[in-house]
Amino acid sequence: MRAVIPFKKNNAKSRLGSLLSEKEREDLAMAMLTDVVQELRSSGCFKVIDILSTAIIDIEGTNVVLTELGLNESLNEYLKKMSSHSINEPVLIIMADLPLISSKNIQDITSSNADIVIAPGRMGGTNAIFIRNPSSFQVDYYGASFLKHYEIAKRNGLNVQVFDSFNLSTDIDEVSDLTEVLIHGKGHAATYLKKLGFDIAKNSGRVNVRRN
Amino acid sequence: MRAVIPFKKNNAKSRLGSLLSEKEREDLAMAMLTDVVQELRSSGCFKVIDILSTAIIDIEGTNVVLTELGLNESLNEYLKKMSSHSINEPVLIIMADLPLISSKNIQDITSSNADIVIAPGRMGGTNAIFIRNPSSFQVDYYGASFLKHYEIAKRNGLNVQVFDSFNLSTDIDEVSDLTEVLIHGKGHAATYLKKLGFDIAKNSGRVNVRRN
Repeated sequence: MRAVIPFKKNNAKSRLGSLLSEKEREDLAMAMLTDVVQELRSSGCFKVIDILSTAIIDIEGTNVVLTELGLNESLNEYLKKMSSHSINEPVLIIMADLPLISSKNIQDITSSNADIVIAPGRMGGTNAIFIRNPSSFQVDYYGASFLKHYEIAKRNGLNVQVFDSFNLSTDIDEVSDLTEVLIHGKGHAATYLKKLGFDIAKNSGRVNVRRN
Repeated sequence: MRAVIPFKKNNAKSRLGSLLSEKEREDLAMAMLTDVVQELRSSGCFKVIDILSTAIIDIEGTNVVLTELGLNESLNEYLKKMSSHSINEPVLIIMADLPLISSKNIQDITSSNADIVIAPGRMGGTNAIFIRNPSSFQVDYYGASFLKHYEIAKRNGLNVQVFDSFNLSTDIDEVSDLTEVLIHGKGHAATYLKKLGFDIAKNSGRVNVRRN
């Protein structure tokens, strides 16, 4: 079984630009990627962990594959290459910005009997997708990709399981998402944000993030 | 084992006021409550399902307890009454606005061995909390209640499990939350929103809800 993580370092997480500099956003993106890789590795599920990256990076225990293609194109080329090399082992495609992820989440999603397992992100996203047979599937991210992936699977006669996880649903794009990292995170991303002076503003009725 | 659901009908879900009339918001709140009660009942876990309500309502298979107290006060009085009547059975406190809930979620959260099990809501909330011994705990909602409940449990020497569920994390307060109901919901709330003409605006890169 293998895992593949698409990763964009340059000008990462632009929607956090009001609170974090470009360098800080790139460092946060690397910290989140490190959290994901660490949990993938400690799950013990994978022979190979590939990162499809737009920039040269170095993360222990992974292969970094440089690509200039977009998200869909790079992943579909990856799936196609697996098939053409007759690598018919299951693959987990997982996003790099899931700092609440646990190795148990990984073990659970990859131990399903379904052909396709989708861990939804909020607002219709797909944060992880487990594909038993890579030659049977193509990805289609952006927009309501959860619905698109569900339909692609059904159209191809595959059975689909939806994986119910708050951890995996929590991808980090907006400033308000940082709250989740500060409240629930235990890894590199949470440590990095705290080092930058972020904490939870508890005074108000609603919870917000603030930078001291 | 019993379940208790705090419920506010009058002027429910005021943050949806830009898209829904007061009557529609109250009907949506009732539809979500119906979804929660239905899954609680079909889980087969509960002898008693109590609703602490601010208005007279009628939902099959539940006891409606009218209260004018606020959320914390009504629930803490409920826990205290259980203790003073020597009802030392476990209780699940669960919010009324969780339309993605499944009976399996209920079975899983109540089958934990921990003293306290917390299902976090987004932004630090507590959407469900399982309390093995009601005399040992008091609730403190609003703000980052997840952190407060975690601390209360630790202070009382109780062990805590965090219950990882996207379904249970998805409470409905804001307009953008309706997207989750339309994409993932299968119950009364999803049906009601579709009847009102809501659907997903898929054209843009980001997913939004719209009313036709």
